[in-house]
Amino acid sequence: MNTAKLSKMLYGGDYNPEQWDPGVWPEDMRMLRLAGMDIATINVFSWAKLQPDENTYNFQTLDEIMDMLHKNGISACLATSTGAHPAWMARNFSDVLRTDFDGRRRKFGGRHNSCPNSPSYRTFSERIASRLAERYKDHPALLLWHVSNEYGGECYCDNCAAAFRVWLKQKYMTLDKLNEQWNTSFWGHTFYDWEEIVPPNALSEQWASNRTNFQGISLDYARFNSDGMLDCYKLEYEAIKSFTPDIPVTTNLMGTYKQLDYFKWAKHMDIIAWDNYPAADTPVSFTSMTHDLMRGLKGGAPFLLMEQTPSQQNWQAYNSLKRPGVMRLWSYQAVAHGADSIMFFQLRRSVGACEKYHGALIEHVGHEHTRVFRECAQLGEELGQLGNKLLGSRTPAKVAIMYDWENRWAIEFSSGPSIALQYLDEIHKYYDAFYQLGIQVDIVSFEDELNGYDIVLGPVMYMVKPGMTQRIEAYVENGGCFVTTFFSGIVGENDIVTLGGYPGELRSLLGIWAEEIDALFPDQTNRIIMKDSYGSLAGEYSCSLLCDLIHAERAEVIAEYGDDFYAGMPALTRNSLGAGEAWYVATSPDASFMQAFLGSLCAKRGIKPLPGKQPGVEVASRNKDGHSYLFVMNHNPHIVVVEFAPDYGLDLLTGLPVSGPSPIAGRGVMIIETSASS
Amino acid sequence: MNTAKLSKMLYGGDYNPEQWDPGVWPEDMRMLRLAGMDIATINVFSWAKLQPDENTYNFQTLDEIMDMLHKNGISACLATSTGAHPAWMARNFSDVLRTDFDGRRRKFGGRHNSCPNSPSYRTFSERIASRLAERYKDHPALLLWHVSNEYGGECYCDNCAAAFRVWLKQKYMTLDKLNEQWNTSFWGHTFYDWEEIVPPNALSEQWASNRTNFQGISLDYARFNSDGMLDCYKLEYEAIKSFTPDIPVTTNLMGTYKQLDYFKWAKHMDIIAWDNYPAADTPVSFTSMTHDLMRGLKGGAPFLLMEQTPSQQNWQAYNSLKRPGVMRLWSYQAVAHGADSIMFFQLRRSVGACEKYHGALIEHVGHEHTRVFRECAQLGEELGQLGNKLLGSRTPAKVAIMYDWENRWAIEFSSGPSIALQYLDEIHKYYDAFYQLGIQVDIVSFEDELNGYDIVLGPVMYMVKPGMTQRIEAYVENGGCFVTTFFSGIVGENDIVTLGGYPGELRSLLGIWAEEIDALFPDQTNRIIMKDSYGSLAGEYSCSLLCDLIHAERAEVIAEYGDDFYAGMPALTRNSLGAGEAWYVATSPDASFMQAFLGSLCAKRGIKPLPGKQPGVEVASRNKDGHSYLFVMNHNPHIVVVEFAPDYGLDLLTGLPVSGPSPIAGRGVMIIETSASS
Amino acid sequence: MNTAKLSKMLYGGDYNPEQWDPGVWPEDMRMLRLAGMDIATINVFSWAKLQPDENTYNFQTLDEIMDMLHKNGISACLATSTGAHPAWMARNFSDVLRTDFDGRRRKFGGRHNSCPNSPSYRTFSERIASRLAERYKDHPALLLWHVSNEYGGECYCDNCAAAFRVWLKQKYMTLDKLNEQWNTSFWGHTFYDWEEIVPPNALSEQWASNRTNFQGISLDYARFNSDGMLDCYKLEYEAIKSFTPDIPVTTNLMGTYKQLDYFKWAKHMDIIAWDNYPAADTPVSFTSMTHDLMRGLKGGAPFLLMEQTPSQQNWQAYNSLKRPGVMRLWSYQAVAHGADSIMFFQLRRSVGACEKYHGALIEHVGHEHTRVFRECAQLGEELGQLGNKLLGSRTPAKVAIMYDWENRWAIEFSSGPSIALQYLDEIHKYYDAFYQLGIQVDIVSFEDELNGYDIVLGPVMYMVKPGMTQRIEAYVENGGCFVTTFFSGIVGENDIVTLGGYPGELRSLLGIWAEEIDALFPDQTNRIIMKDSYGSLAGEYSCSLLCDLIHAERAEVIAEYGDDFYAGMPALTRNSLGAGEAWYVATSPDASFMQAFLGSLCAKRGIKPLPGKQPGVEVASRNKDGHSYLFVMNHNPHIVVVEFAPDYGLDLLTGLPVSGPSPIAGRGVMIIETSASS
Repeated sequence: MNTAKLSKMLYGGDYNPEQWDPGVWPEDMRMLRLAGMDIATINVFSWAKLQPDENTYNFQTLDEIMDMLHKNGISACLATSTGAHPAWMARNFSDVLRTDFDGRRRKFGGRHNSCPNSPSYRTFSERIASRLAERYKDHPALLLWHVSNEYGGECYCDNCAAAFRVWLKQKYMTLDKLNEQWNTSFWGHTFYDWEEIVPPNALSEQWASNRTNFQGISLDYARFNSDGMLDCYKLEYEAIKSFTPDIPVTTNLMGTYKQLDYFKWAKHMDIIAWDNYPAADTPVSFTSMTHDLMRGLKGGAPFLLMEQTPSQQNWQAYNSLKRPGVMRLWSYQAVAHGADSIMFFQLRRSVGACEKYHGALIEHVGHEHTRVFRECAQLGEELGQLGNKLLGSRTPAKVAIMYDWENRWAIEFSSGPSIALQYLDEIHKYYDAFYQLGIQVDIVSFEDELNGYDIVLGPVMYMVKPGMTQRIEAYVENGGCFVTTFFSGIVGENDIVTLGGYPGELRSLLGIWAEEIDALFPDQTNRIIMKDSYGSLAGEYSCSLLCDLIHAERAEVIAEYGDDFYAGMPALTRNSLGAGEAWYVATSPDASFMQAFLGSLCAKRGIKPLPGKQPGVEVASRNKDGHSYLFVMNHNPHIVVVEFAPDYGLDLLTGLPVSGPSPIAGRGVMIIETSASS
Repeated sequence: MNTAKLSKMLYGGDYNPEQWDPGVWPEDMRMLRLAGMDIATINVFSWAKLQPDENTYNFQTLDEIMDMLHKNGISACLATSTGAHPAWMARNFSDVLRTDFDGRRRKFGGRHNSCPNSPSYRTFSERIASRLAERYKDHPALLLWHVSNEYGGECYCDNCAAAFRVWLKQKYMTLDKLNEQWNTSFWGHTFYDWEEIVPPNALSEQWASNRTNFQGISLDYARFNSDGMLDCYKLEYEAIKSFTPDIPVTTNLMGTYKQLDYFKWAKHMDIIAWDNYPAADTPVSFTSMTHDLMRGLKGGAPFLLMEQTPSQQNWQAYNSLKRPGVMRLWSYQAVAHGADSIMFFQLRRSVGACEKYHGALIEHVGHEHTRVFRECAQLGEELGQLGNKLLGSRTPAKVAIMYDWENRWAIEFSSGPSIALQYLDEIHKYYDAFYQLGIQVDIVSFEDELNGYDIVLGPVMYMVKPGMTQRIEAYVENGGCFVTTFFSGIVGENDIVTLGGYPGELRSLLGIWAEEIDALFPDQTNRIIMKDSYGSLAGEYSCSLLCDLIHAERAEVIAEYGDDFYAGMPALTRNSLGAGEAWYVATSPDASFMQAFLGSLCAKRGIKPLPGKQPGVEVASRNKDGHSYLFVMNHNPHIVVVEFAPDYGLDLLTGLPVSGPSPIAGRGVMIIETSASS
Repeated sequence: MNTAKLSKMLYGGDYNPEQWDPGVWPEDMRMLRLAGMDIATINVFSWAKLQPDENTYNFQTLDEIMDMLHKNGISACLATSTGAHPAWMARNFSDVLRTDFDGRRRKFGGRHNSCPNSPSYRTFSERIASRLAERYKDHPALLLWHVSNEYGGECYCDNCAAAFRVWLKQKYMTLDKLNEQWNTSFWGHTFYDWEEIVPPNALSEQWASNRTNFQGISLDYARFNSDGMLDCYKLEYEAIKSFTPDIPVTTNLMGTYKQLDYFKWAKHMDIIAWDNYPAADTPVSFTSMTHDLMRGLKGGAPFLLMEQTPSQQNWQAYNSLKRPGVMRLWSYQAVAHGADSIMFFQLRRSVGACEKYHGALIEHVGHEHTRVFRECAQLGEELGQLGNKLLGSRTPAKVAIMYDWENRWAIEFSSGPSIALQYLDEIHKYYDAFYQLGIQVDIVSFEDELNGYDIVLGPVMYMVKPGMTQRIEAYVENGGCFVTTFFSGIVGENDIVTLGGYPGELRSLLGIWAEEIDALFPDQTNRIIMKDSYGSLAGEYSCSLLCDLIHAERAEVIAEYGDDFYAGMPALTRNSLGAGEAWYVATSPDASFMQAFLGSLCAKRGIKPLPGKQPGVEVASRNKDGHSYLFVMNHNPHIVVVEFAPDYGLDLLTGLPVSGPSPIAGRGVMIIETSASS
């Protein structure tokens, strides 16, 4: 989807008029226009309404909604409604019902409720998508397709078991190969017939969602499950595309959601869209990281912010209100990191069921005289004034952090060395250091091209996939700077250990051998002692979680452990290779180390922070058509004065020039246009 | 049941001689008489003994027990034994077995184990009740019927599912109405056939006992479940009444037990009876509140304390002994709040199974030379001396707190705004303030008459049922003082939001609009700042949990928030209506506010504390025949001197006059008779 | 098994060459020899490899492994491989699959996965054991049989239910007897047909692994489950013995593992073997206690340490490395307490599945140049030098602590008085006091002969089995000193209370009556006040958990409670009987009381500490052929100087004489040979 062709940033959200008496629709239209909105995601949960039984379809209400939207100048993000199946389907085609982790066949209820390998679900969902596409392919309101809704969860039914076996045959071809790659001789699990294989759940190999006897089996099931849902998506995608080849198709992702390999999904999406629901205690930089991950799914292309709440959520433990200004601030945060839309769940609050206390543009009171509406309308007006300036702009980054869903699964399935090791936490540690430094990063997959980056980081690169080592080595030889950490290079793609000494395939690149891995208790730390100062790195730092006991082979030792029986062993090494260098961080350092270390690396490569970074102030930039747009976002509740160069640029939100010391209100935002060279 | 006709307060408890060799029965009789006991609850768990198979009944042992009791001057509270079904029934009529929340059909075991919608259970339980009534209808020992035992729990089997659909048809008549009231269009749950509806449990709409996707469905299932058990009770009730129309029938309730709507049950009980098992850390005022709730079930009529432990419980984590005097103190606490019996579980300790370490009159040692026996015998002697003085006396109260089971269910099923909101806690906050002030309250249902009260409080009146608003408005217009709180007036009886601005139907009465509801984290507070002092209300107080952001429309603002972005918005408002006033407490204040606020309201209406209130000293009174009986209960372990008017009255327990400063021993009790005008 | 006939202590561990390409086998052999190893436990998880289907057996690989071991001078501890069934068996003979506590029939997966009452499992497991014995009966490598692996867990399937009924018929003969012993009249559970009885799990009588409605049922099921697994073991045992009557047979136990009654198992084992996996926070004395328990299983005979990790575990939350020296220290700790082997899990680390991060002699790096290998090889060398000196030596102890699995089950199934009461904790409290005093103890069963001991302790002897009282009374009358505690003598073997006053059968022996039992909250304590000083007992001490309120009848009161309403009641009593005395400790005292009290008892009987005891320094001794071997083990990380008599003996590890003050390195060990009289 080429958002650059839009006249302004999309602004709107989820809208379910079919849940209301049509008598309120005109009022809805009035208020949407009043708030400056131009897009509505509709039909998300309408399957049961559209299709009251196996053979009947009824599009009358949807026709009316589409026409109404068009008449009011609002585009439709038209959902296929397959996110929740109808009750009659559950009753008459029980294969649509999932079997859960505990082996229980579910009954009708909830959403995310269809078995991805259900023949009935696949037939019916493809058919409804097809009917919708056929009917609305030429409707003038149709801007975008929204397949299903927030795909997720797992199923362990017999249909899934059968499909899993087919998937395995395609992957391994022979049982011998499968037995080898799953190391089934351990605990005497050798399979002699494909039919002996059962899904790994609480009745077989797993005793918790991330505790398994056989990592290989569980890892493949995670892949299979992600692929199965992707197949469901693709069935709908293809059905739609056969009618509307030029209308973009997407589905709403969920950021760092664990169960689906979004890099694989992104290949089949015309544009990335995602739902941003930070918890009240989510670090702001974590949200930024997630935006950057979503942007990274399609190589840096702008994405859609498909959902956020105008104020309150309902499903957190304590659903605090978004304080005045926060909705606007976080909306611009999304834009700063690549969003070309601001959309809400939801435009009108439902009167019953579990989301009735979730924020909405139109609250239960039903009019526009609310704080929440006013803030939404103000933002709507600003977005109108911004026009298409930012649309399609790209994020310039010289640093990349590698992220991989399969690696995450494998790390978190691991039995030992520590349950405290969470992949996302380690990724965020690295991300946050750059964030605090004011240095923009891309998040890339294990398959993405690295050569455009000055620095590439692969934290906890536990699983090294085929060909990765060669690509990283080539990147370094060409002058790249690569950083990886403890618990990297341990296994191949099926969680089989690379023998011959950790970090396995990466050992030559890094010039070290990790003999042992010590796991620290939550209240334990060790120290990192610098041998000499290295840039801004000096003195000593704290570390925790895991400590690799490494031997430098070719690498230079930059820092050592300060405590315990491995005091004096290397904690940080640097290995030169060709024109570049490869770093190994043998433990999980504290934030002060991270900023000093990564700051030094950037400084040596001439990577400069964006202007305006201060504590609590976030900076980010996007480039387009020879202009740069610097976002300065004050997450503090109080005013802050930010220093800029004289005649630095123009604040698009105020229309005023920015020059020298510039105050920015608590929770305020500046979007400063400059020439792209800055 | 007219307890006023008894010659003395009933004293006794659960007695299971059929679990023992008859050789010990004479010794039991001797010791019961020694302890001054005159009632025994028998036959509670005898079903398997009485009915060894589908067609055989054997009442010989029960005949002997009834005769023995009569011979020893002990009345029988005769249970119908249907609280636990026999093993043969579970095996041969498996529909009696429940299916649990997780969808698992249970096997034989435990108690509370029968499906309320099991045809076999209903047939067999009605039949055994009928046989018992026929057989013992003229037995001179028979004083009272005790149906089943501590009804509770839930079932989700197919019989329940079918019965639920019948129940729903009766309630909603049409699926259209049901779909509307459950808001099934949300998440595409529209039902086209009654058969598509399944009970809400872990396999369908719920993922925990109070977490649901569809509040309307779960709420109706809670009602249906309570009604289904009530139907079981009524079947037995009717069967008994056809033989003994004049013998009262009851069942033992469990205080604030959540799952059964006791106000609805009370209509079918001849007298309320309940089991009082405070945990070691239960606030004393919580126990008082529960007594008052039980008294409120039948409009203030005296009730039976059916069970309490003489000393130790067995099922708590740490089963501390009741300290010397505590059993007596808590027994009088029950009487003070309306009990006309003191009964124990159990009279003789069992030798095996899970309650063998639960306290009893007769311990395992088997003789009367124990502390526990001595304390029981002392109380027995006192009760004998009190005679019928207190029996049938009523509790004078000018303050009522409204309580409702359906409201509780709805609040605790709610998704948002805060999991910390517990209806009982808020009710207790209000109750405790009056308790600490020494002011007696009634607890009434949402349907009870209000006009007799000077002050009526409806804390967290989330659900407003049809007609309630009109009744409350009329009460206020007639000069009443009504107090309600945050999160009131939100929904109607099916948890559908009342549109047009919170607090919905109550908005006009209260003269406010609640625009938003902020949820505070557990470690967060806000402040309540008094605009002027109001009676003893002055200065500032702390509040927490939820803060409504309200606008006073017609109401007067008495206090405002002190902090956060809504500082200065109203925290306490007062609206005049007709001759009365309606208060809105927009948040959950601390105890000092509660006492100051409610104390002021009482003072302005001339409601005076009972004499004798001091820290740790509880006061309560009952009236009868022109006399008032003031209970002064010292929950402190140390002696306290209480001040009374000169020649105040006569302490029934000592026979001594009470006048001026009067010492009361640690854990001591006074029951002071005065003329009722005091 | 007579380990005394071996030429040196066995040294080796679990070895799974069938999980590897035979290309690495020669390297394995080289490294095992390099480490001084002479035994390998093989074939533990090979069932699926040995038997690819119902009718086919293939021993070729195992033949090669056996031959290779023999050729390299390594003996085989040959496992029967039945610890995990093959996948084809799960598919084709589904009765081998267990049904879990929640009533779910499992699918293929994990280990410990066979139903003990599965006809197919019993047939197939006996058959494979038989085939192995037949094939390898004359193989020169065969030293020892290892049946199955770490028996454990439970099953609740219909086959188990049927077998349980058979087991019950054998035990009780009639339903009347069963109904009486289970006290089924409680809660109306009377059984009229054996078929009505179902296993106690989450669907029937239990709601957690140690929470039950009927202690008697759950206790019998625990016995039945232990017996059922023992039957499986015995089937294999007998099959093997019919071919190799002279080769010892064992299975690897798990120390204090709760579910199996190892005293009963030990009767059918030729030698005890166990797997020692202390958690990082396991007290060192707890490990010693467990060794002593394992030694006690066969009356003090030496046992095999079958498994320990060379360094890291994988299944703990935080798997810290064993610090340098700790593996050696803990190995000698095992020997000090009776081990005649040091064996590891595992010799080579697996490449895949859940134990790949568990320590091994040969790590993933694959060579011997690792810290772990070096420590193992050093120990191997030392064991070679020690030769057969220690083999078959016995532990001299004058103190015995009684321990019983059924007693533990009954205590922990109890509903009341406190969930905090854990049998093992109380046993360990007593054990630890002796440990800190440097006094060696035996752990004996409730059936073992007591007369050889000066002091016998029965902490929390809740269940008194038939004949026990008589044996203990006889022991005391003959001059013995017996100590027991609160919550003793309460029930008989079926958890039926002994009526007539606690401590039931023991009341006469102890000369007291326990009227009540108070349970203290976790933050509560009481005080123990000495009436006079008694030996080193003086002043006051703290106690917690439970406080019996006792009356001294014939006993002398040595100490009283200091607080609460039972201040002044006895807390410690001593009753003289014949030539001996019986003590009752009415509560759970702190460690300072335990050491003072038990130290006094020992002092009065002339029981002297072993030399060398200091804080953090453990001492233990073994005797053989007129020599005594004193183990001095410094668990401190720092050096300590230990005082010995002049010319005390010879340190076998250094070959140097020990005389006077002797330094012992941090984590160092001395094994000092003296004449046995010392």
